[in-house]
Amino acid sequence: MWKPDRGSDKPLYAQIADDLARRISSGEFPPGTRLPSERSLAELLGVNRSTVVLAFGELRAAGIVESRTGSGTRVSRGGWGAAPKQTPNWSRYAEDGGFLPNLPLMRRIREALSRHPSLIDFASGELSADLAPAAEIAALLREQDDIAYLGYDNPQGHMPLREALASYLARYRGIRTTASSVLITSGSQQSLFLIAQCLLAPGDAVAVEDPSYCRSLPMFQSAGLRVFRLPVDEHGTRPGDIRALRKKHRVKMVFLNPNYQNPTGTVLGAERRKELLEAASGLGLPIVEDDPFSLTAFGERPPDPLKAMDADGSVLYIGSFSKIAASGLRIGWMVAPNAIVERLADARQQMDFGLSVIPQRIVARFLESPYFRPHLERLRTELQFKRDLLIDALRKELPDQVEFAVPRGGLHLWCRLRHAVQDGKLLDEAIRRGTVFVPGSVYGSAPGYVRFTYARPRAEDIGPGVAAFAEALRAMEHGPGGP
Amino acid sequence: MWKPDRGSDKPLYAQIADDLARRISSGEFPPGTRLPSERSLAELLGVNRSTVVLAFGELRAAGIVESRTGSGTRVSRGGWGAAPKQTPNWSRYAEDGGFLPNLPLMRRIREALSRHPSLIDFASGELSADLAPAAEIAALLREQDDIAYLGYDNPQGHMPLREALASYLARYRGIRTTASSVLITSGSQQSLFLIAQCLLAPGDAVAVEDPSYCRSLPMFQSAGLRVFRLPVDEHGTRPGDIRALRKKHRVKMVFLNPNYQNPTGTVLGAERRKELLEAASGLGLPIVEDDPFSLTAFGERPPDPLKAMDADGSVLYIGSFSKIAASGLRIGWMVAPNAIVERLADARQQMDFGLSVIPQRIVARFLESPYFRPHLERLRTELQFKRDLLIDALRKELPDQVEFAVPRGGLHLWCRLRHAVQDGKLLDEAIRRGTVFVPGSVYGSAPGYVRFTYARPRAEDIGPGVAAFAEALRAMEHGPGGP
Ligand SMILES: Cc1ncc(COP(=O)(O)O)c(C=O)c1O
Ligand SMILES: Cc1ncc(COP(=O)(O)O)c(C=O)c1O
Repeated sequence: MWKPDRGSDKPLYAQIADDLARRISSGEFPPGTRLPSERSLAELLGVNRSTVVLAFGELRAAGIVESRTGSGTRVSRGGWGAAPKQTPNWSRYAEDGGFLPNLPLMRRIREALSRHPSLIDFASGELSADLAPAAEIAALLREQDDIAYLGYDNPQGHMPLREALASYLARYRGIRTTASSVLITSGSQQSLFLIAQCLLAPGDAVAVEDPSYCRSLPMFQSAGLRVFRLPVDEHGTRPGDIRALRKKHRVKMVFLNPNYQNPTGTVLGAERRKELLEAASGLGLPIVEDDPFSLTAFGERPPDPLKAMDADGSVLYIGSFSKIAASGLRIGWMVAPNAIVERLADARQQMDFGLSVIPQRIVARFLESPYFRPHLERLRTELQFKRDLLIDALRKELPDQVEFAVPRGGLHLWCRLRHAVQDGKLLDEAIRRGTVFVPGSVYGSAPGYVRFTYARPRAEDIGPGVAAFAEALRAMEHGPGGP
Repeated sequence: MWKPDRGSDKPLYAQIADDLARRISSGEFPPGTRLPSERSLAELLGVNRSTVVLAFGELRAAGIVESRTGSGTRVSRGGWGAAPKQTPNWSRYAEDGGFLPNLPLMRRIREALSRHPSLIDFASGELSADLAPAAEIAALLREQDDIAYLGYDNPQGHMPLREALASYLARYRGIRTTASSVLITSGSQQSLFLIAQCLLAPGDAVAVEDPSYCRSLPMFQSAGLRVFRLPVDEHGTRPGDIRALRKKHRVKMVFLNPNYQNPTGTVLGAERRKELLEAASGLGLPIVEDDPFSLTAFGERPPDPLKAMDADGSVLYIGSFSKIAASGLRIGWMVAPNAIVERLADARQQMDFGLSVIPQRIVARFLESPYFRPHLERLRTELQFKRDLLIDALRKELPDQVEFAVPRGGLHLWCRLRHAVQDGKLLDEAIRRGTVFVPGSVYGSAPGYVRFTYARPRAEDIGPGVAAFAEALRAMEHGPGGP
């Protein structure tokens, strides 16, 4: 991000005017588009609003922008010759496409984090930097001496990684599979996207957990699917609900996250697993099992995945490196019947022509290296430690205002507020006090819930973060203007 | 790919039977699905067909598969208990989705190449391994000592790479832009996919060159777009055609590859560029400029991109690292107005949650390293050398049967056959003789054309490859049964 240089001889306002003029002439803000407001630009650049007012004045004087009260400042049209010129109506193109934008609350969180990187972050569903195996990965990168081929790779993914995953899956998840049944994806997200786009058609009905992974909902909607909800209780979803939905709405696929579910942390009960597989196999109904968290289990052996018991081939199994190592590598995988793997690999060629070879090589080596097991041990210990810090802080700061079950694995704690408040307002109050979380409504559930990701903030920030959240909550309860 | 071990004491057929049993029980071939034919399995595993017949006999005896004359060998249903069980009808799921599969000829080429890696490859539209900067990239990987952050990255792409690209674009392509107008993508392919999915809606009309990049056609169809064609002559597309299409079909976007077009090698004429931009700006019609080949120009300065003259912001500019360095890194970029970049970055979060950080870091460093310029010099020299080898071989082997224009850049030579033959048959004949190319029909053009990618085969294979192609063509001309 460009910032004005306070050491320069050129006044700040002139630097800003020049930068904007350059960005306008480069097409970043085409003729007719509205510039960011004076206030937000000032915040972004870390200057006084009056400085931005001066810069806008310069641009107005040069005829580059025009302001009208109430409608902000826009890039001037015309001035480029006599013939009538027209810029494509880019905002219309941006709005009219078939694809739906993400949830506004998620975008608000992302914007807050990019403007204020010092916020204590309970919102991003990922590990903190110190929990990623960065040193190990750097060491493996230094060992890359034999990069013989950097061309378009196998559409299903890099063969050495698929082989490493087949043995990883046998060893850690009790899944017997072969490299040819494995598809490498850009995280679980791409697995879910491929399934929604390529195996289902607009108008098809699917069942998902309620609450469930927030980024899957807009994705299903973009694919034109009708989404039906399966309430999650303390043992997960109920097989009877699935049978009922199948009957009533001809649901074509069920999406589940059985171990340490996002956001609730719930583990699907052993009896229900059996019943569910029976139901699926009786109905010929596919289950998508999203299993990113199992290897974080705290001091217990995580339950076997449904896929390990899937004698009839009803389950598409999805895994990811994001929650056990590093989300920025963008490596996930799917285990599926041959026909499905081939179909999805073929379709993905149209979308992105496959994944980069280098991160796939790194992950293959990491899985087979002596680094992997000790990394998992350390990860589990540290995650449990952070979970306990969060629990202690919540009990101390908000003894009577919150309720939660203690998660036995995963990255998140799902918290009910005794007195429901308005989600978006609470978020704003918390941001103002230096912390950010994800409001429960984002997961499609009833208001009055909050998801705290204990994996993401640094250990020493967890206490202060909860204190800031508690203040925000109290400010809400006392209403605007409160004590 | 698993292959039977000829050194083992266990007979080949038993090894194959065991491998198939394992793959069946792991769900790769669920109950009811059809196994590959005896012939294709024998070819795949490099054994006699009789060996596979024995292996299938074993599996049949064990009740694992069933054969019926005429319908091949299928995995048995049942045998898993008394309750009626059902496997999801996976082939239906694979066929029913909204997304269209890729062109069958392209899949046939890919299959041939994966079965016979020794084929002389004029088909894959990419550089040969020795033209990629593998040693340079390995050196840069070894320098990665400061991987501080491996989390989810900025949705628009890694900031240091966007900054490196802004200065690359100014220096090499005359495009003035800023990091915030750049979106990093998984190659040009993902840029095109994002545009088709997010800025256009099903039913919208678009105009594309005829012939044009083969992988864009199924992609546009998957997005539900109506595709209209702009014939390419020796100076590219005609602006008048675009005006006419706009009027007649309300075309909403135009896709062009103005420099060293794939597949024809054509360069859009200077006059036409001006006219085209005027037409676009008069109509408020966006142009997508796909520019992957310019930096390969042989002994000439490549024409400036349309984007460099785009005063009214009508052009979305797309670039890629694939054709000038390494397609397996999967790094491309788009330069677009702010509203568009934000919209596409947001939507991509639903598709794959962004690109891996590591290849982005590598490309950023490579662009700014002292390796980059010498790499480009070497690339151009070698490409021109290979182009000349191809031309000499074609003139020698097929003096009277082919016609072509000599490309001044890019990776491909577009060749007209004086006597049109059936595309698919010619391909089969060529594969049988050890070489592979892309039939012109794949690009949507009239039959009787062939695309040869001179960049892909090794220099020493170009002559023998053309000789094999010439034999295949002669076999066709003399009809089945040969001369
Ligand atoms: C349940 C679940 N599925 C999928 C994902 C997507 O993660 P990734 O694409 O990084 O694997 C997440 C991330 O939060 C998740 O929680
Ligand atoms: C004109 C054109 N556009 C786009 C692409 C896609 O390439 P990539 O996604 O590797 O950049 C190609 C590849 O052949 C091409 O020729």
